Amino acid sequence: MKSSDLPFIFINSAMSADGKLSTKERKQVKISGRADFERVDTLRAASDGIMVGIGTMLSDNPSLTVKSEERRKERVLEGKEENPVRIIVDSHAKTPTDADIFKKGKGKKIIVVSKAAPADKMNSLEKNPDTKIIVADSNGLGRVDLVEMAKLLRKEGIKALMVEGGATLNAGILAAGIVDEIYTFVGNIIIGGKNAPTFADGAGFSENELLRLELISFEKIEDGILLKWKVKNE
Amino acid sequence: MKSSDLPFIFINSAMSADGKLSTKERKQVKISGRADFERVDTLRAASDGIMVGIGTMLSDNPSLTVKSEERRKERVLEGKEENPVRIIVDSHAKTPTDADIFKKGKGKKIIVVSKAAPADKMNSLEKNPDTKIIVADSNGLGRVDLVEMAKLLRKEGIKALMVEGGATLNAGILAAGIVDEIYTFVGNIIIGGKNAPTFADGAGFSENELLRLELISFEKIEDGILLKWKVKNE
Ligand SMILES: NC(=O)c1ccc[n+]([C@@H]2O[C@H](COP(=O)([O-])OP(=O)(O)OC[C@H]3O[C@@H](n4cnc5c(N)ncnc54)[C@H](OP(=O)(O)O)[C@@H]3O)[C@@H](O)[C@H]2O)c1
Ligand SMILES: NC(=O)c1ccc[n+]([C@@H]2O[C@H](COP(=O)([O-])OP(=O)(O)OC[C@H]3O[C@@H](n4cnc5c(N)ncnc54)[C@H](OP(=O)(O)O)[C@@H]3O)[C@@H](O)[C@H]2O)c1
Repeated sequence: MKSSDLPFIFINSAMSADGKLSTKERKQVKISGRADFERVDTLRAASDGIMVGIGTMLSDNPSLTVKSEERRKERVLEGKEENPVRIIVDSHAKTPTDADIFKKGKGKKIIVVSKAAPADKMNSLEKNPDTKIIVADSNGLGRVDLVEMAKLLRKEGIKALMVEGGATLNAGILAAGIVDEIYTFVGNIIIGGKNAPTFADGAGFSENELLRLELISFEKIEDGILLKWKVKNE
Repeated sequence: MKSSDLPFIFINSAMSADGKLSTKERKQVKISGRADFERVDTLRAASDGIMVGIGTMLSDNPSLTVKSEERRKERVLEGKEENPVRIIVDSHAKTPTDADIFKKGKGKKIIVVSKAAPADKMNSLEKNPDTKIIVADSNGLGRVDLVEMAKLLRKEGIKALMVEGGATLNAGILAAGIVDEIYTFVGNIIIGGKNAPTFADGAGFSENELLRLELISFEKIEDGILLKWKVKNE
């Protein structure tokens, strides 16, 4: 059972029919279409926080904003910020100080770091408006402790957390045992490649450690299919 | 358009919800259940040939037979062998001479090799009953040429060819542009791992080379979902 001091955490990713998130060059490719784009934007608007790993930040420089003006207005009417809190998991504070999350859209940004993050880099990041650094590394391992992070985010008011990849963060947060649901849009392409990022990279589970899921629903959307899974964290 | 001197080729694999065929230790794990097992056996019984790569041969030593006695009898009533031709793609003739395909079940076995395969190894393999070596490597690249192989198999009477993995062979035959359909049973587990075999490993496609698919059907089977895709080979 998950403890109540954690947010509801779900992962949403688009993957190819062979389970890849992008090409071997780590180049973002179009996996889904317009309808899925709207679905993802709706999910974002309904979340309190949207998270990606530093790998995705560095390769894609996503703005992580709610794209629809109407959905942003609805959030404001509900007394929320236009955009959910945008969160980067970034042990060494490598997020560029001029990243798009700081330039595009209003709202809070949180960079989650480890004790190994250089003070000067943290200082320059915090000079960006509405930007907070959170250290989640009690054990001083030099890597963000994802359970500790989730608890700290819950204290920041984040009840529903949407994780949008990439491959390594998905794997890490699944291994941490704190993911409630997984949504994968499976697109109509094969990307292939033993080095292309998959839905869950990381070290991987051995036979006796496999993570069990339950299929909640499936739905054809345009040329692909959306699979929703519940994670059975024992 | 595919030329008519090729078999109808389809890939059938079971993969985890994150696109893996087995664990990082390349250990086969249970991805599907009884109903999917019967589906696969039915597909086998309806095929003229069943193929795996040497990687799968060496890690799993599969017998590749039709498991149901009834289905084997039906094949015999139709004037066929009990089992489809069992085919190993094995450039250097590394298939063990005492592999289970030689010990279990009746019917023809074909080992497809390159010009780099050692003669003595080919000789000992051919000493097994009903076993034939086919060289498909006109250009002498020391690796099986999969298009040449498919044409030679068509001449051997193989009209419907079922490819059952693994990761590297799937990728190679997809890249060769000769696969008609892909069936993936997506099971309710996460395997994870950047080094675990995925549905399609190999070199991988770049952005402008992506293989396009069309979703033919989807069906929940026990705890997973079966996706059938048609490959759009231009
Ligand atoms: N199709 C999609 O839906 C989608 C979505 C997002 C991304 N992507 C693709 O995914 C690729 C990027 O994936 P990626 O694997 O390189 O990067 P990533 O998962 O975005 O970020 C991984 C990084 O997060 C940091 N991290 C900190 N603590 C961690 C922990 N406890 N567990 C795991 N990670 C931790 C690590 O770097 P530090 O140790 O330095 O902090 C790690 O290398 C890109 O090609 C992108 O285009 C696709
Ligand atoms: N879940 C499933 O449905 C399923 C099914 C099958 C296998 N698996 C798993 O997949 C893993 C094995 O996959 P694998 O990638 O190691 O091996 P593989 O795909 O079975 O065999 C690959 C080998 O085939 C040979 N080959 C010859 N010509 C080729 C060509 N033109 N293109 C591609 N390959 C060619 C190559 O070796 P040479 O150059 O030496 O000939 C290559 O290394 C195992 O862990 C197994 O359990 C899972």
